[in-house]
Amino acid sequence: MGSRNMASAASRHDMIMRRIDTGRIALNVREAGDGPLMLFFHGITANSGTLAPLAVRFADRFTAIAVDQRGHGLSDKPDDGYGAADFAEDIAALIRALDRGPAILVGHSLGSRNSVTVAAKYPGLVRSVVAIDFTPFIEAEVFDALESRVNAGDRLFKDLPAVEAYLAGRYPNIPAGAIRIRAETGYHEVDGGLRPLASASAMAQIATGLRADLTQAYREVTRPVLLMRGAESRLVSAEALAETSRLRPDLPVVVVPGADHYVNEVSPDITYRAITNFIEA
Amino acid sequence: MGSRNMASAASRHDMIMRRIDTGRIALNVREAGDGPLMLFFHGITANSGTLAPLAVRFADRFTAIAVDQRGHGLSDKPDDGYGAADFAEDIAALIRALDRGPAILVGHSLGSRNSVTVAAKYPGLVRSVVAIDFTPFIEAEVFDALESRVNAGDRLFKDLPAVEAYLAGRYPNIPAGAIRIRAETGYHEVDGGLRPLASASAMAQIATGLRADLTQAYREVTRPVLLMRGAESRLVSAEALAETSRLRPDLPVVVVPGADHYVNEVSPDITYRAITNFIEA
Repeated sequence: MGSRNMASAASRHDMIMRRIDTGRIALNVREAGDGPLMLFFHGITANSGTLAPLAVRFADRFTAIAVDQRGHGLSDKPDDGYGAADFAEDIAALIRALDRGPAILVGHSLGSRNSVTVAAKYPGLVRSVVAIDFTPFIEAEVFDALESRVNAGDRLFKDLPAVEAYLAGRYPNIPAGAIRIRAETGYHEVDGGLRPLASASAMAQIATGLRADLTQAYREVTRPVLLMRGAESRLVSAEALAETSRLRPDLPVVVVPGADHYVNEVSPDITYRAITNFIEA
Repeated sequence: MGSRNMASAASRHDMIMRRIDTGRIALNVREAGDGPLMLFFHGITANSGTLAPLAVRFADRFTAIAVDQRGHGLSDKPDDGYGAADFAEDIAALIRALDRGPAILVGHSLGSRNSVTVAAKYPGLVRSVVAIDFTPFIEAEVFDALESRVNAGDRLFKDLPAVEAYLAGRYPNIPAGAIRIRAETGYHEVDGGLRPLASASAMAQIATGLRADLTQAYREVTRPVLLMRGAESRLVSAEALAETSRLRPDLPVVVVPGADHYVNEVSPDITYRAITNFIEA
């Protein structure tokens, strides 16, 4: 699975892969460093590898752990239970199992939704949330397009270059290095080639669940949440972000110029500095 | 001077007024609480009283100190030395004199400019900055209008109600309670009535100095800075803030709906929550 590939060249850390039994579900994680807990949660169809290059940059000061969320990567893939509450309970169980909360949660897309959800429900387990490119008020047609893309990803590929070519087309702004990580960490060998590690049935359920109204969690969350959006995101429109700011004008906002939805992969340095500014203030 | 008036009704703290000799300049402050250092710096023509209601809300967890900056309130008023570097050196000297840095700096307008300036020059003295409604790229005509308002404030008033009537006209969105604080803390008795405590000569020099280019300080500052703007501000335009975000896309932004330039006085609760979200993340 090439965990070595995930570490930033500048980092003195490699990430260790291990499986954590939370008592509720077994989750595969990539982990590095020591200190307060900082957890990273990927988007739909991705896995802990996509956030590992960001996570490892915090390993000097934190126990940085990127998580394969249920249905993804090498974590358990139950037949059902893929709503926001299910993921939030997984995160709560993970923080309790690690016994070193409260944790800083960094989530992209699906992971952002899940992080805010658990922070609203269990404020004592969460120090703060970096919510990357997912907000309430995302338009129905945006979810329609996302659902089509997600469902189209469940294919057989003849080899790794074929996977990379597919991913490069699906994510045109993600640099080649990050595409390679997605290819190397997100697929496994089957008869005739490679298939996604992510469960197709789980992905379909998650895509449906992403449509659920998030306003209550955002209204109620008391822990600090940094709202990050890619200025060119096709998932979070400028209007969806503005509406979220009207709901919670006290939450800080970072809009990353030139980035699409895949903010941390497209603009890793600004993402890192924005998170640092937030958690070091 | 009615320091009791400055404490929020909800707070268990009163602020104590005292004078601190920094070795460089003697500064009058209002102080409450114990813990890490949190300093508050007012805008041009104001004084520590205008930020005391905000400062006192942090006194449960911080040594919260609102400062009369040079030329204002009951602090020293030298004949000259009213540029950004002069104020920044005052803040550095104050933090060193208090011997409990690094400090969180909360600045409004002039105080925001000064706070970012000292953070850029002495990052070791500053934990973070809340920069309220002052940015680079403010338009020349905005400074023209500010300068006119500032210079028109140097008048003799027959009594406190006359001061309050004047201030209510100058700051139409600031609630009566905050207007009263400005009146009670910012004026002193002279023959024939009341005059501003702020030095007219200092105010003129400060107004000129506010026009100096701030882009270098903003480009270079390494400590976290929260950019706050009133959505209805006539000082920081939406375009000036956008240009600042283009210079530093990694800095978090809070735009307070309904607030004009006087964000902390017009919208104290959102200001408090935004600062809390920033410093507790």
